[in-house]
Amino acid sequence: MPKTIHDLVDVLDLEAIEPDLFRGPAAQTGMQRTYGGQVLAQAIIAAYRTVPDGRQMHSVHAYFLRPGRADSPILYDVQVSRDGQHFSTRSVTARQGGRRIFTMTGSFQAPEPGVDHSDPTPELPSPEDCPRVGDLLAARYGSSAASFWQEWEELDVRYAGGLDMAHQSHVGHLRVWVRANGSLPDDVRLHQAVLAYISDLTILAVSLLPHGLTYGPGLVAASLDHAMWFHRSVRADEWILYDQISPSASGARGYSLGRLYAGGQLVATAAQEGLIRLES
Amino acid sequence: MPKTIHDLVDVLDLEAIEPDLFRGPAAQTGMQRTYGGQVLAQAIIAAYRTVPDGRQMHSVHAYFLRPGRADSPILYDVQVSRDGQHFSTRSVTARQGGRRIFTMTGSFQAPEPGVDHSDPTPELPSPEDCPRVGDLLAARYGSSAASFWQEWEELDVRYAGGLDMAHQSHVGHLRVWVRANGSLPDDVRLHQAVLAYISDLTILAVSLLPHGLTYGPGLVAASLDHAMWFHRSVRADEWILYDQISPSASGARGYSLGRLYAGGQLVATAAQEGLIRLES
Repeated sequence: MPKTIHDLVDVLDLEAIEPDLFRGPAAQTGMQRTYGGQVLAQAIIAAYRTVPDGRQMHSVHAYFLRPGRADSPILYDVQVSRDGQHFSTRSVTARQGGRRIFTMTGSFQAPEPGVDHSDPTPELPSPEDCPRVGDLLAARYGSSAASFWQEWEELDVRYAGGLDMAHQSHVGHLRVWVRANGSLPDDVRLHQAVLAYISDLTILAVSLLPHGLTYGPGLVAASLDHAMWFHRSVRADEWILYDQISPSASGARGYSLGRLYAGGQLVATAAQEGLIRLES
Repeated sequence: MPKTIHDLVDVLDLEAIEPDLFRGPAAQTGMQRTYGGQVLAQAIIAAYRTVPDGRQMHSVHAYFLRPGRADSPILYDVQVSRDGQHFSTRSVTARQGGRRIFTMTGSFQAPEPGVDHSDPTPELPSPEDCPRVGDLLAARYGSSAASFWQEWEELDVRYAGGLDMAHQSHVGHLRVWVRANGSLPDDVRLHQAVLAYISDLTILAVSLLPHGLTYGPGLVAASLDHAMWFHRSVRADEWILYDQISPSASGARGYSLGRLYAGGQLVATAAQEGLIRLES
């Protein structure tokens, strides 16, 4: 994956092929399959390129149709579903080698005032007092976890609670502090795309925790869908608390919900169902 | 809206125009705009008509693009996105008079075993001990609430908690028992469509509760999106606990999450963002 946050910004700088058609570069990675969060973030940028200035994404719903090849660029085809007085809607299809790998619809809104309420932020140790997730998992699970987390140096992810609940609760939970590892330009579109990128990293694992499962041989784990609601403006290069739970797993699918808090308010919500298939 | 559950079943019996194109009948109603849950339920049935037998919907993500006219039928155009070894994906566009009013993507899976966990069901009074929501709101808000709820005789909706939290909490919550008002045929597709139909009825109102707002003049309220995950099989004609919260409202949008419990397990989750615009 991108070695630095600047490399991630480069990966999100799509090439315009023609109106409503864009190409997203491949990231430098040792992984064979494209990270879902990268496809989601590039698709958000592609949709934004076709939306009138000043309209801000407030929700996105995506399906991962097939695994992407991490060594190849991805084509993003944007369909203008609607431009209304207040809202714009876009659908994006991502293709590689002529095959659809991903589909997404997102909605954008011209800012308007209204009623306001927010879940209170859970009280947790500050990120400075929390260990890096990569260090923690490397100490617990050894070199495979260490090499997985070496892929994610563009992000700073700190463990804030939940792992110890494995096996002790029917319902998984995991809390991490997350931010870009370095500062980002002042562009709301980029901050939302990076937040989406971050949101896909740990969410499926939360469904594995109650069962003592970890990524590795014998386990097929893959994101099926991903939804995200952006409640408030957020900077992805400042600390965000990502509070994730898994209310359900059944039928080889785990369902996880994540709430993202910053500045004392709920700034975004993510939801994802992932395939969890045990191979014998 | 449909007077009886049999009328609702008729509304969900789509006419096949040609392969992958269906027409859904209008419901008998005094409302001018099509109820969003009806469009969602008809679109789910349309998608199912194109999916190999035995595959069951496990998630759906939808956007409401424009209000529908309640007095006219709706055309559903199904796109086959993918038929894989285990999963099928379909996108459905709904049109009236040539204009797109709705778009949805859903995923279907051939049954397979796997890990299992579920949120515990909240403990609440039994539905027989709970008042009908229509009776409760008519007593509290008078004839406009009464005439709204007279539209929903095909459903049995009982109030189980939450209204009294209005103004007392920053976060809305509402708990209702719900079921079809009469028995449904043994068809999993129909039960899922009716559950989706039910899930749109009260979810947006949960975002209004913390602000003491009710439907009526001066308030524009409309569903923007709707996502649903079907975790386990469920009968829509048996009691289901619909536990709804609103974690956030901002920018004229309210965000609500609903968990549906039956038989001691989480059977489905719904999420919706709705427009909440105060007109002066």
